[in-house]
Amino acid sequence: MSGEQKREHYHKIRMERKKAQIDAAIARADSEKGLLLVITGNGKGKSTSAFGMVGRALGHGMKVGVCQFIKSRTDTGEEAFFGAYDNCDWHVLGDGFTWDTQDRSGDIATSERGWEVASQMLSDPSYDLVVLDELTYLLSYDYLDKDLVLNTLSEKPEMQHVVVTGRNAISELKDLADTVSEVQDVKHAYKSGIKAQKGIDY
Amino acid sequence: MSGEQKREHYHKIRMERKKAQIDAAIARADSEKGLLLVITGNGKGKSTSAFGMVGRALGHGMKVGVCQFIKSRTDTGEEAFFGAYDNCDWHVLGDGFTWDTQDRSGDIATSERGWEVASQMLSDPSYDLVVLDELTYLLSYDYLDKDLVLNTLSEKPEMQHVVVTGRNAISELKDLADTVSEVQDVKHAYKSGIKAQKGIDY
Repeated sequence: MSGEQKREHYHKIRMERKKAQIDAAIARADSEKGLLLVITGNGKGKSTSAFGMVGRALGHGMKVGVCQFIKSRTDTGEEAFFGAYDNCDWHVLGDGFTWDTQDRSGDIATSERGWEVASQMLSDPSYDLVVLDELTYLLSYDYLDKDLVLNTLSEKPEMQHVVVTGRNAISELKDLADTVSEVQDVKHAYKSGIKAQKGIDY
Repeated sequence: MSGEQKREHYHKIRMERKKAQIDAAIARADSEKGLLLVITGNGKGKSTSAFGMVGRALGHGMKVGVCQFIKSRTDTGEEAFFGAYDNCDWHVLGDGFTWDTQDRSGDIATSERGWEVASQMLSDPSYDLVVLDELTYLLSYDYLDKDLVLNTLSEKPEMQHVVVTGRNAISELKDLADTVSEVQDVKHAYKSGIKAQKGIDY
């Protein structure tokens, strides 16, 4: 065999072996259920990833609810785009970040009002996907009762998917989750003086 | 002051300080340009995050191009949803993963045909956002000429945003990027026997 033929030959053997392993893993993974996903870490792409799932779910004709707990701006591309769908209920429930409001008891009241909206969705099986965007902060800052939130999440409808985003997810939330991803910042344009960009950051 | 008043008081002081720091950082970040973003790592949420940006961009009336280099399935929620938009050109350009095809020279030919489509978009400033989904594999497997790809990316239209996703991004690509995020798997439902879920995974 020539060098290139050899390369092709061994490539095929390795890939056959890999396919057998992957097929076996797929065969083992045969159950379906509503998932609790937590997307945390300090990197860019947590909320964005949740919004990608909103697009996927709407593409399959599923019903989606979105609660944005911190954000107060309503000029985002995501809301303009997804919020326009009948199948998608979009709620902007925040007053901005804690360093914008500088008002702890006000933040707590806002959080509790927001949680009312979320709780409704989390007890309504007609929602196939519920996104709780930036909920993690309300737990790490003790703005919401941890047990209340964790209990509500653990009692959600069986086939409902829930995605929670935000930095510093508390360990009890990660323990409860089926899938946890951490997004790490390796490099960020913002740090080189480039401002938040339309279509990319909002 | 009571304990609670004290807590409120110091919260306000800390948040004032934090706001001053953040405002200064925002003031420093004042330039605009088309970004090259790389979303890599072994966790769930890389392509999903890119699709979230597609939603954002479409929400702002921007024009979007998507090239999916590996995927061959055309029943995904993302394509059904975003691909239906006039403003969004969606191309499924793959034959499946290397372990599905088991054919190195076939994979190279497929990759080169896909790159033709991507190159067109990367030289056309009417595209505000171009997503090169799973391009990283074509570089790490040497299916495309590295210099050709890196040169094309470095010569893209100035205001065009490009998002590259996939595991194992090569270091030259990360060096060229403005923003690099790594998504790490902390926990994955799939590993506990739950299969890929509609709306979440595809």
